[in-house]
Amino acid sequence: MGQRVRWGMVGGGQGAFIGAVHRAAAALDGLYDLQCAALSSDPGRARESALGLGLTDRGYSGWREMLDRERSLPPERRVEAVSIVTPNHTHHEIARAFIDAGFHVLIDKPMTTTVEQACDLAAAAERAGVVAAVTYNYSGYPMVRQAAEMVRAGAVGAVRRVYVEHHQGWLATKLEAAGQKQATWRTDPSCAGAGAIGDIGTHAEHLLRFVTGLEIEAVCADVNTFVPGRRVDDDAAALLRLTGGARAALTISQVCVGEQNNLNIRIHGELGSIEWRQESPDFLEFRRLDGLRQTLTRGMPSLGVAAAAATRLPTGHPEGFIEAFANIYKDVAFAVLACRTGARHDMHRSTFPTALDGLRGVRFVERVQAAARSGVWTAWND
Amino acid sequence: MGQRVRWGMVGGGQGAFIGAVHRAAAALDGLYDLQCAALSSDPGRARESALGLGLTDRGYSGWREMLDRERSLPPERRVEAVSIVTPNHTHHEIARAFIDAGFHVLIDKPMTTTVEQACDLAAAAERAGVVAAVTYNYSGYPMVRQAAEMVRAGAVGAVRRVYVEHHQGWLATKLEAAGQKQATWRTDPSCAGAGAIGDIGTHAEHLLRFVTGLEIEAVCADVNTFVPGRRVDDDAAALLRLTGGARAALTISQVCVGEQNNLNIRIHGELGSIEWRQESPDFLEFRRLDGLRQTLTRGMPSLGVAAAAATRLPTGHPEGFIEAFANIYKDVAFAVLACRTGARHDMHRSTFPTALDGLRGVRFVERVQAAARSGVWTAWND
Amino acid sequence: MGQRVRWGMVGGGQGAFIGAVHRAAAALDGLYDLQCAALSSDPGRARESALGLGLTDRGYSGWREMLDRERSLPPERRVEAVSIVTPNHTHHEIARAFIDAGFHVLIDKPMTTTVEQACDLAAAAERAGVVAAVTYNYSGYPMVRQAAEMVRAGAVGAVRRVYVEHHQGWLATKLEAAGQKQATWRTDPSCAGAGAIGDIGTHAEHLLRFVTGLEIEAVCADVNTFVPGRRVDDDAAALLRLTGGARAALTISQVCVGEQNNLNIRIHGELGSIEWRQESPDFLEFRRLDGLRQTLTRGMPSLGVAAAAATRLPTGHPEGFIEAFANIYKDVAFAVLACRTGARHDMHRSTFPTALDGLRGVRFVERVQAAARSGVWTAWND
Amino acid sequence: MGQRVRWGMVGGGQGAFIGAVHRAAAALDGLYDLQCAALSSDPGRARESALGLGLTDRGYSGWREMLDRERSLPPERRVEAVSIVTPNHTHHEIARAFIDAGFHVLIDKPMTTTVEQACDLAAAAERAGVVAAVTYNYSGYPMVRQAAEMVRAGAVGAVRRVYVEHHQGWLATKLEAAGQKQATWRTDPSCAGAGAIGDIGTHAEHLLRFVTGLEIEAVCADVNTFVPGRRVDDDAAALLRLTGGARAALTISQVCVGEQNNLNIRIHGELGSIEWRQESPDFLEFRRLDGLRQTLTRGMPSLGVAAAAATRLPTGHPEGFIEAFANIYKDVAFAVLACRTGARHDMHRSTFPTALDGLRGVRFVERVQAAARSGVWTAWND
Repeated sequence: MGQRVRWGMVGGGQGAFIGAVHRAAAALDGLYDLQCAALSSDPGRARESALGLGLTDRGYSGWREMLDRERSLPPERRVEAVSIVTPNHTHHEIARAFIDAGFHVLIDKPMTTTVEQACDLAAAAERAGVVAAVTYNYSGYPMVRQAAEMVRAGAVGAVRRVYVEHHQGWLATKLEAAGQKQATWRTDPSCAGAGAIGDIGTHAEHLLRFVTGLEIEAVCADVNTFVPGRRVDDDAAALLRLTGGARAALTISQVCVGEQNNLNIRIHGELGSIEWRQESPDFLEFRRLDGLRQTLTRGMPSLGVAAAAATRLPTGHPEGFIEAFANIYKDVAFAVLACRTGARHDMHRSTFPTALDGLRGVRFVERVQAAARSGVWTAWND
Repeated sequence: MGQRVRWGMVGGGQGAFIGAVHRAAAALDGLYDLQCAALSSDPGRARESALGLGLTDRGYSGWREMLDRERSLPPERRVEAVSIVTPNHTHHEIARAFIDAGFHVLIDKPMTTTVEQACDLAAAAERAGVVAAVTYNYSGYPMVRQAAEMVRAGAVGAVRRVYVEHHQGWLATKLEAAGQKQATWRTDPSCAGAGAIGDIGTHAEHLLRFVTGLEIEAVCADVNTFVPGRRVDDDAAALLRLTGGARAALTISQVCVGEQNNLNIRIHGELGSIEWRQESPDFLEFRRLDGLRQTLTRGMPSLGVAAAAATRLPTGHPEGFIEAFANIYKDVAFAVLACRTGARHDMHRSTFPTALDGLRGVRFVERVQAAARSGVWTAWND
Repeated sequence: MGQRVRWGMVGGGQGAFIGAVHRAAAALDGLYDLQCAALSSDPGRARESALGLGLTDRGYSGWREMLDRERSLPPERRVEAVSIVTPNHTHHEIARAFIDAGFHVLIDKPMTTTVEQACDLAAAAERAGVVAAVTYNYSGYPMVRQAAEMVRAGAVGAVRRVYVEHHQGWLATKLEAAGQKQATWRTDPSCAGAGAIGDIGTHAEHLLRFVTGLEIEAVCADVNTFVPGRRVDDDAAALLRLTGGARAALTISQVCVGEQNNLNIRIHGELGSIEWRQESPDFLEFRRLDGLRQTLTRGMPSLGVAAAAATRLPTGHPEGFIEAFANIYKDVAFAVLACRTGARHDMHRSTFPTALDGLRGVRFVERVQAAARSGVWTAWND
Repeated sequence: MGQRVRWGMVGGGQGAFIGAVHRAAAALDGLYDLQCAALSSDPGRARESALGLGLTDRGYSGWREMLDRERSLPPERRVEAVSIVTPNHTHHEIARAFIDAGFHVLIDKPMTTTVEQACDLAAAAERAGVVAAVTYNYSGYPMVRQAAEMVRAGAVGAVRRVYVEHHQGWLATKLEAAGQKQATWRTDPSCAGAGAIGDIGTHAEHLLRFVTGLEIEAVCADVNTFVPGRRVDDDAAALLRLTGGARAALTISQVCVGEQNNLNIRIHGELGSIEWRQESPDFLEFRRLDGLRQTLTRGMPSLGVAAAAATRLPTGHPEGFIEAFANIYKDVAFAVLACRTGARHDMHRSTFPTALDGLRGVRFVERVQAAARSGVWTAWND
């Protein structure tokens, strides 16, 4: 009680969007103590950002310096866990180094830019026995966890048909040409690896797997770049065959003018259906074969243990994106604290997304691209 | 002023769903006078149904009798237009006979069960110069017409990405095994031709073409039968390449437990997007690149002429399915009355769906089935 | 079977809104045969309007002529029922004359402009034994009937708190000064009697009584005219004490910019609550003390007999304002046809709103005005 | 940069709802450092709760001990600001003591249980020149601030008609009889002062004033206790006359089964209207006289400075109750830090709710009670 994870951060300096979200998520429950950081690849900016966060002595000018110095501190003083929120193409090198040195890591998605790197990281984490979380933050929403629990409990029966969408509109114009920071690195193939498929396609794929518990067996896909001159994809649609005979249609796009962050999933089974929409995250529509159309809301006493454990406020008091993100951080904190006694973390029994999920996400990107190139159904395992 | 179409009906007797809808649609504006009918393939039921409608002397026991008798009446007394609302597999023979005899026809969708029949009907109608309408009733909704007009006027710019869905749940169980009338003929391959693809896939395809004005160039598809023992498809998903480089994802299903009649379309262009949902048909969401998120409602003074002409009530006074259906009937009535002077109807300039649209719908069914069988992208014109 | 009411109409000529709605409502089910009309107080307009409806020989130039001539026809040829859709201040004289002559009447709301007239009409109808319906059309919505049936069956337990709103925005500016026809007579005290309280306040009051089954015991009210120079009220709010200890807040306004026809009711009882909104009329929200939040939809098999009898289409096929209006007409038709055998109509057991409801509506207007003037709680029966 | 408020807390120990919310709100932006607390009126529970929060040496057993000890620390070590989240009836004594000792305070609402206490606190805060914030947290929502800014800027023109509702259902049964902690003190007249009027009526009243900028001139009200045996009110409805001739209807209830935390406001002016709903807090409906119906969303570039300053995440990434609460805390932090130089805080120019708002809230409770007792319109200033 009252224990806090000694925590560090790589990336996420001034002007970065997701770094601030990670810090807010970590702050919410008081389970993390930010003790050091290498907030930028630019040493001056790194130091200035650190001061802004009140890190006077352990604000490092780069991740290598941070690794060296922290490693040299006595175990009870060095940070235990490090969040890596740099551009995608650098995740592998940084995460591998921290994992090998025995630090727990939280890596933003997509975990890496190649399947080889992803396999390597998953293996390294397994070998080291450390926590290697991947922040598929949408799986932190209580009602997403409720949906997953209900599907497992048979509330919709055998799954037949799934629809998953992640539609955004912010890249409908060539924002990268205007120097917008988020757009620039996310549409640079050397930094981002893929475009929309990597950035949001992996969220959709993880949500699909997390809620249904099914795996992808084959993919048929259409991948597009609608904005002239863009160097990565900005739109894709895929038909999926899932384990157990279920079918899914998964569509993602970043050129849907007017869409903000419309991630949603609808699962239709033999006995019922469940629908969840990220932009109204506190609600779940549950409909049954007998005609019942029910709205479940976060905080209801009738919900399952997974949702209850991820809930902070009573019904009618909206929780949002940061709270969901914080649920991932909270679960990771408990896993990290449990390792203080020397225990190894078992990724296969994790309640939060790990490097195994990260690997599947990167594989998904690669399979969709292969299917789109070939124009035929493409097996997950070739 | 005050003129009414002399009108007859084939099919649609007691217990039929869609026949009663056609009659309500025709009654709404007082433009049709139902004078004769052959309401069932069962002579006794036909007669009894006719009496129930107040047709004492021209309630025929079959469509052939109706054709013969009406043909023998003097031109100003015989019916001018005949609605054909029998099971799909009989459309071709009946419609062909009435067309060849110079009657105008209104045919329920899908127009026929084979492409050959569809071509034949379209050619016959063209030859005869009669009105040959196909009741793609959803295109009668004022806000669907508004959407089409806005797309034509450039409100969303060049179309990039379209999503069309038609999801129902009423066939999630093997209703046909229980003898439910609607389910029985719609899942009988010999009556219906195809399953969900024909029944609602053609609605989705027509809506897509009607609103965007684009044609389908290639199809990639996944067609499924989820209910064990069912003899037709009950679910499909298709990726489409449209003229002008646009892409569409079209999904249909009749096994989505909890869905009622969820037909919807979202059109994303370079400059904006439009969304319409059949279950809230009086509204259109219009979103622009500059951030404006606007809800257009039927009856607003700012709407275009197409929507205005299809509107009966002020904003806030809901119109529904029958009113939309009635708009098709109203447009057909004007076309039929215009032919009284001897003019031929030009299908290519029609404001309502015609046999040309009916043909495209049947072709769509055939192309989706072919694409699903082959597992590869299939051109519209092979 | 196949019987139709011989029907006539007073008012509702060209340019009138509600007359066309009455005709569409009567046409929908084929239960009315419009045989005569006096469509305008202007004889030329009356005749021209009649021709437009195909009434060549019984298009009268005024209601007195219509009454005289129809009365002189043999019983089996004259009309049986007459709809009165003239401005409010003329309802009493016309309705009284037709009732006394033994015709059934359908009167638009508010039934009259004074309580004395309303009492007189109700007494006359009772004496004559004819049907005297008042078209509180919103009570024709299937889900409103479902709500009423559920409240009667105890689904929400004893009613505690009710909220009723009828908010419109079309009179937010001085439309009457621009000569808009609807606005002109509705804001003329000599025609309309009251302003918003009469026009829509009576709808709200009837909906409250129809759904809850409770009567108003006392009123406290605030009545306003917001548009400068307007001669009637355009806004009101009232607190109500209902039988059984329940409380209601009833607000109406015609100056709510952006509101279209937002009539809604929420009934909160000891065990549950029900919410209905006219602009999405096919749905009912039902929430229970145990946390269940259920959406009931028109057409569901689980609904009660009242909703089922008022339903034409399956779930997911929207019904609207005209269909609801048509349900009143349908019920009246059955009552009128039942009187052909000479039976008297019993207003106290009617399934549709009658002159008794019309009387309560007019009394409501008068009580709200009295309460607003006095500034204190005002008993229903003083 | 990097400065944090030295912060303490009175109340909010284990099992308290609102205390945890205050801590999460304070944590979110890293602007507060919780250094001491007196978390319970029970000394053992206070100490245990403090340990749970990691407060090992400054976890006090009561607020008097906390005040004495902190006062004795050197200025740069003692806390600067104290949050008071105890039951309502204790607010005055505690807040007065801390204010008089020069501490800044954040007081939960309602600020006190009598108007006299409220006046006294406001005067004390003014005298001391300290920050005395009252956590009307709903005014921290970005879209509430946007609404207020739009109304000030004339987006809806002169305000005519306002509807404010705060409907909950959690007290629909006699929860206090079951020993539920929240219910017990909130329905105890000696602790809570009033029932629903104090608990949520003050939120509704503040929202009304905050958004419209208008003051209440007169009240007419109906106050009820629906649950048998309850010792405080649990429902109320009020008609309000506002400055400038506007009218409001304000309804609150805690017995609306199925309602969760339905606080909402609709402002109708001469030129447009604005609607905001707490359960979908990121959206604002804006409708104009010319027919435009627009949805504004948090994070849009087109919003004003007030909303932008209160926004953490881009559009489509939901923010909720804690983020809104945190906005109050953030504004207070800036005010507290600004006082470090010795400046006095000017409550009259505050961006967050102060003791002046707290006073109006308590006055509102008293006026509503008086109006309900008398049954007549009651002036704000008698």
